[in-house]
Amino acid sequence: MSENEYFVEEALLSKVPRWRNYLAAKLGLRNHWYPVKLSSDMHEGQVVEAKVCGEEILLKRINGEVRAIRDRCLHRGVKFSKKIECYTQETITCWYHGFTYQWDDGRLCDILASPESKAIGRRHVKSYPVQEVKGLVFVYVGDDDVKPQPLSEDVPPTFLDEDLELHCAIYEVESNWRVACENGFDGLHVYIHRASELVPDTMRSLPIGHLAPSGEVEVHESDGAPKGVYDSFANHSVVWEGKVGEKVVVTGTKRESDKPTRTTAASLWMPCGLRVDDFPDQGITQFEFYVPVTEDRHLYVMLVGKRLKTDEERANFTHEFWNRWKPVGFENFNAQDIEARVALQEFYHRDSAWLDEMLIEGDTPLIKWRELCHRHARGIQKPEHM
Amino acid sequence: MSENEYFVEEALLSKVPRWRNYLAAKLGLRNHWYPVKLSSDMHEGQVVEAKVCGEEILLKRINGEVRAIRDRCLHRGVKFSKKIECYTQETITCWYHGFTYQWDDGRLCDILASPESKAIGRRHVKSYPVQEVKGLVFVYVGDDDVKPQPLSEDVPPTFLDEDLELHCAIYEVESNWRVACENGFDGLHVYIHRASELVPDTMRSLPIGHLAPSGEVEVHESDGAPKGVYDSFANHSVVWEGKVGEKVVVTGTKRESDKPTRTTAASLWMPCGLRVDDFPDQGITQFEFYVPVTEDRHLYVMLVGKRLKTDEERANFTHEFWNRWKPVGFENFNAQDIEARVALQEFYHRDSAWLDEMLIEGDTPLIKWRELCHRHARGIQKPEHM
Amino acid sequence: MSENEYFVEEALLSKVPRWRNYLAAKLGLRNHWYPVKLSSDMHEGQVVEAKVCGEEILLKRINGEVRAIRDRCLHRGVKFSKKIECYTQETITCWYHGFTYQWDDGRLCDILASPESKAIGRRHVKSYPVQEVKGLVFVYVGDDDVKPQPLSEDVPPTFLDEDLELHCAIYEVESNWRVACENGFDGLHVYIHRASELVPDTMRSLPIGHLAPSGEVEVHESDGAPKGVYDSFANHSVVWEGKVGEKVVVTGTKRESDKPTRTTAASLWMPCGLRVDDFPDQGITQFEFYVPVTEDRHLYVMLVGKRLKTDEERANFTHEFWNRWKPVGFENFNAQDIEARVALQEFYHRDSAWLDEMLIEGDTPLIKWRELCHRHARGIQKPEHM
Repeated sequence: MSENEYFVEEALLSKVPRWRNYLAAKLGLRNHWYPVKLSSDMHEGQVVEAKVCGEEILLKRINGEVRAIRDRCLHRGVKFSKKIECYTQETITCWYHGFTYQWDDGRLCDILASPESKAIGRRHVKSYPVQEVKGLVFVYVGDDDVKPQPLSEDVPPTFLDEDLELHCAIYEVESNWRVACENGFDGLHVYIHRASELVPDTMRSLPIGHLAPSGEVEVHESDGAPKGVYDSFANHSVVWEGKVGEKVVVTGTKRESDKPTRTTAASLWMPCGLRVDDFPDQGITQFEFYVPVTEDRHLYVMLVGKRLKTDEERANFTHEFWNRWKPVGFENFNAQDIEARVALQEFYHRDSAWLDEMLIEGDTPLIKWRELCHRHARGIQKPEHM
Repeated sequence: MSENEYFVEEALLSKVPRWRNYLAAKLGLRNHWYPVKLSSDMHEGQVVEAKVCGEEILLKRINGEVRAIRDRCLHRGVKFSKKIECYTQETITCWYHGFTYQWDDGRLCDILASPESKAIGRRHVKSYPVQEVKGLVFVYVGDDDVKPQPLSEDVPPTFLDEDLELHCAIYEVESNWRVACENGFDGLHVYIHRASELVPDTMRSLPIGHLAPSGEVEVHESDGAPKGVYDSFANHSVVWEGKVGEKVVVTGTKRESDKPTRTTAASLWMPCGLRVDDFPDQGITQFEFYVPVTEDRHLYVMLVGKRLKTDEERANFTHEFWNRWKPVGFENFNAQDIEARVALQEFYHRDSAWLDEMLIEGDTPLIKWRELCHRHARGIQKPEHM
Repeated sequence: MSENEYFVEEALLSKVPRWRNYLAAKLGLRNHWYPVKLSSDMHEGQVVEAKVCGEEILLKRINGEVRAIRDRCLHRGVKFSKKIECYTQETITCWYHGFTYQWDDGRLCDILASPESKAIGRRHVKSYPVQEVKGLVFVYVGDDDVKPQPLSEDVPPTFLDEDLELHCAIYEVESNWRVACENGFDGLHVYIHRASELVPDTMRSLPIGHLAPSGEVEVHESDGAPKGVYDSFANHSVVWEGKVGEKVVVTGTKRESDKPTRTTAASLWMPCGLRVDDFPDQGITQFEFYVPVTEDRHLYVMLVGKRLKTDEERANFTHEFWNRWKPVGFENFNAQDIEARVALQEFYHRDSAWLDEMLIEGDTPLIKWRELCHRHARGIQKPEHM
C-alpha cells in the first residue's frame, strides 16, 4: 500500500488557498486534544486500545490516573495489545522480546531477553499527555517538542463549567471527521430531522431550514481561547414550508407557545467540537465531538449538559438522560445525522470532491469554519505520524 | 484511493499507436449510446438506478417516457437513490436539503430548505438523452456540448429493422467490456463451446475453430453509418478436428445435411455490439452488447431476433425464446463465454497485459476492431467523468 | 491496480546501502531454488498449482519426474489451471483455444483451433527447472538465460546428506518471507517460547534470551557453497531470568543434567533456509524454509532430520515424527512463531517500517544476514516477473 494515498495532492490544495490546511487535514489536526474514551469505561488497572488521527494508542488507569503510550514496540514494531503483559503496575512488557516501558513517560526501562542492552534507559516509546474531565478521557495528539495548550482551548466554551452536569455516549461512524463537523453545523440539514421522534416528544418547533442573513456568523479567534464559529439563530430567516413550484410538499413544526421552543444557536470549535444551545430542549446544551480515527472513520462523542446545583437535580437529569435524551436524541435524532454522514462520505472520500461540491448561501458558516481551521491549525496529521 | 489508477499509463499507450484510444478506453468510449435496462423492468413512475461507464444514473418513466439524470446532488454530492423523494411526477428532491430537480432537463427548480437561493433556476444536474427501442432503454453517455448522434449509428445494422422481433435478457459479468467484445467476436473461441447443449438441440454444425484466409474481414466505417468489423464465415478455413501431434483429441460437430446448419457471420460494432448471423439457429440473429459498468464489470445484454410478420409467428417465437433460446442459448452456451471472460479478466485487469498477449493469425479481426475503435472513438471515458 | 506498489521506493532503498537488495527483495530473491511441494503430495499424472515469488506455476509428475511450467497461456494469458486439459501424458492444452504445450520444455507444439498457425513450434511458455530431493520438490525461479546453480548451494549445509532422514510439513503463513527468516534466526525471540509444551516434553533447557558476545557470528560466503550466517550458542551469554527493575517476572527453564540439553546453533542460509542444531532435541536437526509466495505470504516448510542407518531406526523416527515432533514441535512451538510473524507483518508490510525499527545488540546476526543477502543475491524478484 502506497502511503501517498493518504496525502492530498498539491494540485487540489493549491485551488483552495483560504482553507488549504483544512483540505489537507484528512487525518485530523495535529497538536490538539481529543476525547477518546468514557471515563466509566476505564477501570483501575485496565488496559484499553484507542485509535486517534490514525495513531494506535494504548491507555491504562494507574492509581486513578490514565496514562497513554503508543501501541507499538520500538524494537520490531509489534503491537503490545496483541498480548498484554503488565508485570508491574507502572510498566508494560512487549510479548515478543520483553522490551519493558514505563507507562508514565514511555521510557524503555528493561529488556527481559537482553538485560544488558545499552538501549535501556535511553529510548522512549511515544507517550501522550492525558486529561480527564467531565467523564471523558482526552489525549493530546501532537509533536513531542510542542507543549500542549490548555485543554480549555480545545473544547467549546462552557463545556468545562463546574455546574454543568454532562452525560455521554460514544459511537464509531464511517465517515471522515470533517464531513461530520459540517453536517452537524449546517443550518439547512435540519430538513432531514423533520420526522424525528424528538419533535413531538419535546413539543418543540423545528423548521425545515434556517440561515443567517447574508451568512452572518461570529468568528471567535482570540489568543488563548477556543477558536470557533458561532451561529445565533435569533435573526435567522426561517423556512417552515417546503415547496415544489407552488405546492407545499413538506412542513416543519411550528408551535405557538408562550415559552421558547427553539434551539438558539449552533457553534463549531476547533479541533472538532459542536455546541448546540437549547437542544435537545430548552435549558439543555448538546455537545458533540467528531474525533478523527482514520481518514474514513470518526468517533462520534455525544453529550447533553445541564447546569445543576443539587444532588436531586442531578439524579433527575441522569434519569432523564437514560430514558429520554439517549433514546430519543442520540438514538433517533442523531441516527439521522449518522446516515447523512455515511452518504456524504461516498462522495467526499475523493479529495477532488471538495472542489466539485456546489455550496449555496446557507453554507457560508461552513466556509468560515474551513477558513478558521486553515488559519489556526497547530499542525496537520500526516501518514508519517501513523 | 488515487484516481490515477483508472488511467492507463502513457508509457503503455505510446506502444500501441494504432489502437491507443482503445487501450485507453478502460471505462468505455464516450459520446455513445448504451443499452442499460429492459423496458419491461421500468414501470410507469418507477425510479431505477444504473451505472454506465462508471457514471451513476437514475432513471424514471414519466407518462411513458424514460428520463435519466445523474444520481448525485449538485450541492454536497449525495446520491438521490439513498432515499428517493419524488413529490411531483416531474421532479426529484434530494433527501438531504430538499434540492429539487426536473427530470426532463435536470434543472434545479426548488430548494426546500432554502427557497430564496440564487442557485434555483440557474443550475442543472446532468441529464442524459434516452431512447427506447426494441424493448431496451438506451442512454447517451456523453459531453453536454456534443449533440448525440442518431442511435442507429451505435447499434449493429438490422438491429432496428421493423420486422425484427427481439427477446432479451441482461446479466452483469465481472470483466472489462473490451475483454467481452473480443471473446464474443473471436473466431477461435468456438473451441470452448464444443460440448454445449446447443449443438445437439439444434442439430447444428459447430467446428472447433475457423478463420478468414489471411484474416480478411470487412471494415465498415462510412460516415453516418455504424462502424464495425464484419467477418463472413463463407470463405473461412474451418477446423473440425483438434490434434495433438497425430492424435485427434477433440472434435467439432459436422452434420451432413441438405439445409445449412452453420452460423454465417459474426460482426462487432461500436461502441460494444456484436451480431451473429444465423445463430443460435438458421434464420435467427443473436445480438449482444457489452456495456461498460466499471473498469472490471460489464452489463451483458443478449438478444435473439427473428423477422416475423404475424401475431402467431410472434407468439411462437416468444414461446421458443423462453423454452429454448434462453435456457439452451443464454444460460448454457453463453455461460461458457461468461466463464472465459472472467478468466481473461484475471490477466487483462493489468493494463500491461495488453502488451504481453501473443496474438496469432486468427486474431487479426480483433486487431482490426481495436484499430477501428481507435479511429472512430468519439471520446474516451475517464475518471473525471465519474 | 498500479504495479508500482510492489516496488520499493528508491528513497528508502538509498538509505540502506549495505542491504539495499534485501529491502528490495519484497517478492524474494531471483535465480534461486525454492521448495514448493511435498513429493508425497504429487502422484503420477497429477497436476498441481503452486505460487512462488509471485509466479503462478503448474506442476505435473510424468513417469516419475516432476515438470513445471508457468500457469498462463501465451496467447490471451488465461490460467491453464482454470480447467485442466491434458490429452497426452507429455502435453497440456489450454481450455480456451487449444494451445498445447510440452511439459518438458514448454514448447507450443499444437493449437487445436488453429493447426496451421506459424506460432506452433516457435514459441515457448516458461518452463522451470525442477529437482526432487529429501521428499521435497524444488523449483528454480530464475531468468531463462541464467544456468541454475546446483541445488546444494541453495540449501543449508548437511541438508542433502545421505544418511539424514527427514520428515516434513508445509503450512502457508500471512507474512513476508523476510519477516519469517528474521523471526526464526533471532536469538532473543526464544522469549515467546518459554511456555511451550516442548520444554517439559523434552526435559530441555530453554533460556529467555541469548546472544553472541559482541554479535560474533560466522559468515559463510565461499564460492560454490551455501551462503549463510552461523550462530554457535557455545559462547553465548544466556539469560535465564527476566526482570523488571529488581523483580524477576519471567523465568526460562534450566536443567541440571549430565547430558547436554540445549540447542547448539542456529544458522540462516540463502535464499530462505534456517537450520537449528540439536533441536527439537539432542541429535535432531530442524530445517525451515520460508518460501516467498506473494509480498505478504510465505510457505512455511518445516523439517526434522536425524542421521540414521537401519530400517528400524527409520521406522522409529517416523513414529516419533508423527507422535511427537509434529504435534509438540511444529504445531505447538512453531505455532508461536507463526503468531509472531503475523504480528510483525502488520508493521513491516510498509516498506518504510524497515527504517523505523530499532534494532539492538542481539540483532546483529540479522544485520549480517541482510548484508549477506545484499552481496550474494543472484537477482531481485520484481512485478514484471509475475
